[in-house]
Amino acid sequence: MKVQVCIIGGGPSGLLLSQLLHLKGVDNVVLERQTRDYVLARIRAGVLEHGFAALMREAQCGERMDREGEIHHGFYIANDGRLDRVDLHKHSGGNSVIVYGQTELTRDLYEAREKAGVKTVFQVEDVVLHGLTSDAPHVTYRKAGEDFRVECDYIVGADGFHGVSRKSIPSDVLREYERVYPFGWLGVLSSTPPVSPELIYARHERGFALCSLRSQVLSRYYIQVPLEDKVEDWSDEAFWAELKRRLPPETAAKLVTGPSIEKSIAPLRSFVAEPMSYGRLFLAGDAAHIVPPTGARGLNSAASDIYYLYHGLIDHYLKHDDHGLENYSAKALARIWKAQRFSWGMTHLLHKFPDRSSYEDKLQDVDLAYLLSSENALGSLAENYVGLPF
Amino acid sequence: MKVQVCIIGGGPSGLLLSQLLHLKGVDNVVLERQTRDYVLARIRAGVLEHGFAALMREAQCGERMDREGEIHHGFYIANDGRLDRVDLHKHSGGNSVIVYGQTELTRDLYEAREKAGVKTVFQVEDVVLHGLTSDAPHVTYRKAGEDFRVECDYIVGADGFHGVSRKSIPSDVLREYERVYPFGWLGVLSSTPPVSPELIYARHERGFALCSLRSQVLSRYYIQVPLEDKVEDWSDEAFWAELKRRLPPETAAKLVTGPSIEKSIAPLRSFVAEPMSYGRLFLAGDAAHIVPPTGARGLNSAASDIYYLYHGLIDHYLKHDDHGLENYSAKALARIWKAQRFSWGMTHLLHKFPDRSSYEDKLQDVDLAYLLSSENALGSLAENYVGLPF
Repeated sequence: MKVQVCIIGGGPSGLLLSQLLHLKGVDNVVLERQTRDYVLARIRAGVLEHGFAALMREAQCGERMDREGEIHHGFYIANDGRLDRVDLHKHSGGNSVIVYGQTELTRDLYEAREKAGVKTVFQVEDVVLHGLTSDAPHVTYRKAGEDFRVECDYIVGADGFHGVSRKSIPSDVLREYERVYPFGWLGVLSSTPPVSPELIYARHERGFALCSLRSQVLSRYYIQVPLEDKVEDWSDEAFWAELKRRLPPETAAKLVTGPSIEKSIAPLRSFVAEPMSYGRLFLAGDAAHIVPPTGARGLNSAASDIYYLYHGLIDHYLKHDDHGLENYSAKALARIWKAQRFSWGMTHLLHKFPDRSSYEDKLQDVDLAYLLSSENALGSLAENYVGLPF
Repeated sequence: MKVQVCIIGGGPSGLLLSQLLHLKGVDNVVLERQTRDYVLARIRAGVLEHGFAALMREAQCGERMDREGEIHHGFYIANDGRLDRVDLHKHSGGNSVIVYGQTELTRDLYEAREKAGVKTVFQVEDVVLHGLTSDAPHVTYRKAGEDFRVECDYIVGADGFHGVSRKSIPSDVLREYERVYPFGWLGVLSSTPPVSPELIYARHERGFALCSLRSQVLSRYYIQVPLEDKVEDWSDEAFWAELKRRLPPETAAKLVTGPSIEKSIAPLRSFVAEPMSYGRLFLAGDAAHIVPPTGARGLNSAASDIYYLYHGLIDHYLKHDDHGLENYSAKALARIWKAQRFSWGMTHLLHKFPDRSSYEDKLQDVDLAYLLSSENALGSLAENYVGLPF
């Protein structure tokens, strides 16, 4: 097979880029290790910044998102029995976020691409990237026992943290920055109305909790748990009881519980790989960077990668201008690090850190008190939460 | 001796409170362990927030400060060879700070009090506070081999971190919060024109540096040094050479050096004691809290203590209203912790931490890049630097 751009990874980043390029006439293929059903069963993020939403619309995949997604103008912070609302719309100068499940968004992208006839190859194995520093890179893979080869101009590595793309950059070129947190998030999805129409981020001495949602009939709740905890240790009953303990009494009293549809524990990690390009390879999304989920930057961090890469590639193909591709890594990383900073800050603001001194615990208290008292601090929170400009 | 208020400690906090109370007809005495000359030889802070300056004027001690002090509308941050100006005036909505040495300010307070005939007792020894939870506390001390006793309604402990006042609160009542930093500041005072008319806070991989000043003919410079360093290890030549390395080349080229008038190493510490009152005793300033000098909150942190205490005491004496005194500790601590938060943040933003991971070093980079790029973040910095409202 011969294409202009070979995209490794059929998650939302890869699919979105593929669809955007296709609409501009740039021939591409997506190679995905799993099946379509497997990808669509993954429960992930649900809060989209306006920049990501704008890209979905540009990809002509925004119709259902705009119809079924919910525009949120704010969220709540629970602390010490109180509930304070952060008015994102006011403090960001009129912006907002869209609550729309990553699963739904991925489905929309697959359907649009299938309708348009853009190629996806599922269940690829043994993907190897070749000739990255040459003018003619290629990708080999196996599928159903047969060997395949894709010749291309460029390779996009959108294959996640565990993917092959980042590992294809020589270790003396790649520099990795990492922070692993001493706790994880136990998440439950349930077919219950959410306790609040807007998200609640709860700070509590027993640990952080988050009341999130995918829609007004589908709730997503999380509690901070020790890293050693296993999902089997947590019955639904135990989960709901612990969640209630960490919410203000009036909120806990309103919580509608139900059987979990999905229950899992995710560790929290901050990670950045530099550079994000190597010869003809460009990394995007989780392949290059991971944030803890506090502050909803995960999927949104990929938005600027896709934006810069999309514009770089069409500038190359339509205008013969390579500046965008040459500067891709530096431009993408500048914004990625700001999202890292924000996620790190939100994680430190709201979680119970087992190894923290009493001085630092008090500072966390005052950080939150100052944040809620200062128009400037609220403005800073809001501009980061809705997404800094590309 | 019998007074209404006995103030332990003849530094700027105690003197300012004494003078303010005197002007309202509240009889008071200041007990100081050292001589007047010793107190006036101490080289300390030089940046006053507008709230502190307003108290100096209210104490009728602001005339020389307003004549000789310099109003600063901004400062610089040096990083990576660049110099960026933070426009405090613009970002704080029109506020500024006054550069005026603590030594001068202390001198003004002594002179005003002497002229007014307010009592100061110098070289007191063995100060002991008695009957703090009774209605009639008293203070005993020795001076020149004789024993003395001061009967009073209230005792104010403004005797610094090492003073006797805080230690007079039972240990099962007092809670202390502390963070000791793994470095100190080596400071040099010299009769040279400052390298910049406004302060320069310099972040550098060799360590932090600060170009400060007392006037346009008296400079105060600092460099971050390991805690183990001794002042004898640092010749003037070595100090100037190291300072130049940490400044942008164009700034270093302009630096005028000269013999040091004073040279010392101060460790950096964050410290808060709670509560700030116990019976008839009220703590103020360094007796209750210490900040690292980054961000110039040290003397300014005392400003709100003095403000709340002054108003609490005159409400008691002139209006028979004890609310201010009863709420003193809670009100003072709320603002003190915000100054702690700011000083902690500025210290982390600008210093080289020997034990920090490469991830955290990168975050420091992006913290600074974000700060300088965001109107909200600059607004937050400015409102803290000029002093949050009382």
